[in-house]
Amino acid sequence: MTIGLGTGSTAYWTIQKIGERVKAGLDIRAVATSVASETLARELNIPIVPFPEITHIDLDIDGADEVDDHLQLTKGGGGALLREKIIATASRRMIVVIDAAKKVPVLGRFPLPVEVVPFGWELTFRRLAALELNPALREKDGQPYITDNGNYILDCHCGSIPRPEALHTTLNLIPGVVENGLFIDIADTVIIGQEDGSTAVLRRS
Amino acid sequence: MTIGLGTGSTAYWTIQKIGERVKAGLDIRAVATSVASETLARELNIPIVPFPEITHIDLDIDGADEVDDHLQLTKGGGGALLREKIIATASRRMIVVIDAAKKVPVLGRFPLPVEVVPFGWELTFRRLAALELNPALREKDGQPYITDNGNYILDCHCGSIPRPEALHTTLNLIPGVVENGLFIDIADTVIIGQEDGSTAVLRRS
Repeated sequence: MTIGLGTGSTAYWTIQKIGERVKAGLDIRAVATSVASETLARELNIPIVPFPEITHIDLDIDGADEVDDHLQLTKGGGGALLREKIIATASRRMIVVIDAAKKVPVLGRFPLPVEVVPFGWELTFRRLAALELNPALREKDGQPYITDNGNYILDCHCGSIPRPEALHTTLNLIPGVVENGLFIDIADTVIIGQEDGSTAVLRRS
Repeated sequence: MTIGLGTGSTAYWTIQKIGERVKAGLDIRAVATSVASETLARELNIPIVPFPEITHIDLDIDGADEVDDHLQLTKGGGGALLREKIIATASRRMIVVIDAAKKVPVLGRFPLPVEVVPFGWELTFRRLAALELNPALREKDGQPYITDNGNYILDCHCGSIPRPEALHTTLNLIPGVVENGLFIDIADTVIIGQEDGSTAVLRRS
């Protein structure tokens, strides 16, 4: 079985748990969505498959910034949205693990990250502003934050995203936009960790 | 007036001509779609506007690899498709200059370039192959060709693209695809240089 390993705090604990299972004899191979997750997996002796050898991914396990009632997600607060989305859409199934605070009725309170090419980013910024998405260039130490793919992130303070499917298409058709943090019709199962230690499960119908 | 300067052999002669006009007193500013065009423009003393100062572009002049009857284009044989598209869609008008051989009834005989992120490009390649687009990784000196934006190009040998609008949307919704060479509803005017030295003009109705 080949599994995708997500990125972020929730994925960290998932990878730890998978490492324990591998130590106990679980026979899997993994592909990671970030350098951080790959490093962690290697430390735990989880076998990593090189990309040219991947013919399929059975299961992707990752976190999310927000999840709505229809299992649509926003991701990318950590900056790895593109790699996470490539792995997620290449997987037969995606399981999302979140804590209860990330389950929302409507997406958008958490800023939506949009990955854009540095060339002419000011023009792309203006197009997002014209759509009233309130973009802000993500910075780090006073400089533009650079993704693993050499791009910038415009965090869109939408407030509310009533039609995530439509916004996803609109954004990806803008030249200069590489990808956006909306994961539409990708997650199959969402596992929600509650404060009392129990879990709730949402499944795509 | 601010104009966009295209890239390629046809754009080369256009920029030369604009340089002559500037020398004769034409008052314009320009933004270039490639380092090569910017260098040429500077040599000809065409003033270049830095991106942060661009509030609008009045007119973009560029070439194309193919143009159909509906003024839909394929571009990017030269590898600059993303920058060309950012400038073209930010411009109020786009004029395309081609020779008669590039005017076709149906797009697709010329390979359609698709710019993809290097991460997991094998997965993106497989998705394009599953769409029967016959992708081939563009190479240079035995290595993957790298675009100005640090990405790879998959040249899709479609043969025929009967529905360019639909293919354009399909491609840009694939994670890992940064942009593709279809320019849909962007060109306003196409000027066709004929073998006998005359020109024909197509206008979007």
